[in-house]
Amino acid sequence: MPLIVQKYGGSSVADAGKIKNVARRIAAAKDKGDQVVVVVSAMGDKTDELLDLAYRISESPDSRELDALVSTGEVVSATLLTMALKAMGYEAISLTGAQAGIRTDATYSRARILKIESKRVVGELEKGNIVIVAGFQGITEELDVTTLGRGGSDTTAVALAASLGAEVCQIYTDVEGVYTADPRLVPGAQRLSEIGYEEMLELASYGAKVMHSRAVELGGLSGIPILVASSFTDSPGTLIHGGASMEMRNKVSSVAHDLDVAKITVVGVPDRPGIAAAIFEPLAAADVSVDTIVQNASIENITDLTFTVAKGQLTKALEVVKPISESIGARDCIGDSKLGKVSIVGTGMQDAPGYAARMFQTLSEQGINIQLISTSEIRITCIIDEAKVKDAVRALHQAFELDKNK
Amino acid sequence: MPLIVQKYGGSSVADAGKIKNVARRIAAAKDKGDQVVVVVSAMGDKTDELLDLAYRISESPDSRELDALVSTGEVVSATLLTMALKAMGYEAISLTGAQAGIRTDATYSRARILKIESKRVVGELEKGNIVIVAGFQGITEELDVTTLGRGGSDTTAVALAASLGAEVCQIYTDVEGVYTADPRLVPGAQRLSEIGYEEMLELASYGAKVMHSRAVELGGLSGIPILVASSFTDSPGTLIHGGASMEMRNKVSSVAHDLDVAKITVVGVPDRPGIAAAIFEPLAAADVSVDTIVQNASIENITDLTFTVAKGQLTKALEVVKPISESIGARDCIGDSKLGKVSIVGTGMQDAPGYAARMFQTLSEQGINIQLISTSEIRITCIIDEAKVKDAVRALHQAFELDKNK
Repeated sequence: MPLIVQKYGGSSVADAGKIKNVARRIAAAKDKGDQVVVVVSAMGDKTDELLDLAYRISESPDSRELDALVSTGEVVSATLLTMALKAMGYEAISLTGAQAGIRTDATYSRARILKIESKRVVGELEKGNIVIVAGFQGITEELDVTTLGRGGSDTTAVALAASLGAEVCQIYTDVEGVYTADPRLVPGAQRLSEIGYEEMLELASYGAKVMHSRAVELGGLSGIPILVASSFTDSPGTLIHGGASMEMRNKVSSVAHDLDVAKITVVGVPDRPGIAAAIFEPLAAADVSVDTIVQNASIENITDLTFTVAKGQLTKALEVVKPISESIGARDCIGDSKLGKVSIVGTGMQDAPGYAARMFQTLSEQGINIQLISTSEIRITCIIDEAKVKDAVRALHQAFELDKNK
Repeated sequence: MPLIVQKYGGSSVADAGKIKNVARRIAAAKDKGDQVVVVVSAMGDKTDELLDLAYRISESPDSRELDALVSTGEVVSATLLTMALKAMGYEAISLTGAQAGIRTDATYSRARILKIESKRVVGELEKGNIVIVAGFQGITEELDVTTLGRGGSDTTAVALAASLGAEVCQIYTDVEGVYTADPRLVPGAQRLSEIGYEEMLELASYGAKVMHSRAVELGGLSGIPILVASSFTDSPGTLIHGGASMEMRNKVSSVAHDLDVAKITVVGVPDRPGIAAAIFEPLAAADVSVDTIVQNASIENITDLTFTVAKGQLTKALEVVKPISESIGARDCIGDSKLGKVSIVGTGMQDAPGYAARMFQTLSEQGINIQLISTSEIRITCIIDEAKVKDAVRALHQAFELDKNK
């Protein structure tokens, strides 16, 4: 019997009415004859409410306790969703991450899944149950509860799909799929009917909020097709998969953007071995996540080192880097928080150098100055003035004819 | 090292400030050098909120799911309390009922504890941790979560105390202990410094809301002394124990009352075998809990059968009993919901017949008509007009000189 895994995010189960709506969608999938496993997030703002409680108790809550606390949010939504299905006459059972056999390491708040012991899930499916699994959580060898960090429920869903050999993992959310650009910025943005894992990974990492890159990566590794679609409409969504069709090749598929960008430039750095390590190791130790790093060509053994961080981390990053920059004899250390990031992504570009030129030309025509450039095989990213991001996305969407995409 | 078990009820941990207050009390116990295990209920109205959510989803929520849902309330308070202790610099760890090894049968919503596998709790105590256990919950052989029903967290605490061989189980609540009568009704009511298990059991069953009879019974069976005291003051509380001192003998220790009493009288019942079963078996099947049952002496093979139920169950009980009463040829079936119950409790009375007479005389002097009488070895209960309960409690408290009790 075909098996599908579905995942519903917090906005899809935000209240009793929405939970009933999701139950109807699950029932429809079951009626088609599939075995159905459902992964569910905490209701709406529930996780934030629990975190808020914790921080009213303690400035730095213990991480093991924090995970045990917030994991209750998904248990609540899983049990409620199961009640809704049973009230409709369907056989269903809720399982916590622990009961579903999701074994993780003990890195609280961002645990990694080590393996899935799927005996209980398989047993419940064989009894004819729809199995509702609390997302975002697992259990250590010591039977302590962990949470999986950002994108956790998506990761639970894809990992379960991989371990159970599901046909597809369906991620239901509040958007209708993956678009050629953010539809709020670009009215002509088109839903993509399919996209490759690598492109989706770049989009997820470079600003598209649809799915967390971690779950996409896991999907790519295990070869499980992932459908991203809306839980509120019947739009067919976007299928993320590995067997790229001809149409997916040879073009830019999407423009991504991110407004949460700050930049630090260490000016006049003596160009000698060990300098980069001297800067980035203390930043990692201070839990500052560094994104793009660019080092200019060295002139007379003096270079400029620039990197970006999330805006909320700029102050902390400067506190770490300023004393280091003095001690290594750099001339200055400058922060700038008014930046944004715009990227074009597509498998097509790896064999065709003209894409970069067209991107830079388009930005230039808009009078937009490029502060930093970074590239991968299937992505080109420019860091620009925050105020220009909207114009840049629109111009690039038009320049690469994405409004004609289907 | 001496070990104590403490239990804090929902009103004691209703918000962040109260949780911090409870943490300070636990820390003080730890500072005395004891090993400390704490059982905690869900915050304030949390359980009711979760139940409300469930009933918005389904008219009759699945019982397994309901238990998994409401059990999250105690996990939340246990983790928050642990965070508060850790923020104060104490070593502490929270455990769910499952992690604490509380194994129950699979009777959801009113599971019975089968055994406690205390290995994890003992291990954490040996590491120097204060162990905070989520009350009211356990786990079945299938690793499914159950809840223990009314008085569940008290039962968790006493069962843990018994299994760990604790010196005492301290139940902290919003009252200062067990009183000679409800202090809201009788201004001169005195706190009892000690009371026997059997007397406490009668008080708990006959209207005193301090502790559920189930936990008292378990205390009596295992011989664990139970201290009932306030979590808000330093009042010494009431010690419930088995080694009754001389002072505890030969007197009435308390007057209990209950306003939640309704009565059904089946009038003119033919007095033949099987009639009582014909009435009470269908009531049990309909989940109606019957309290006092009285059958009058049979006159010419016709008798009246009277029993009491909680007020909320009167309509349901009448629906069950009316057709039966017709089919067995009874003359009538009458319900009355305006009743109350007043009881005197004390080990003294079992050897001294004068107590009953003094109780009836006192009620008579107040012009109070007694509708039903029921007795045990250490309790006499009268069912009277609801409106007279307050007067009855005050008069009995005075007649048995309980304001002089200490």
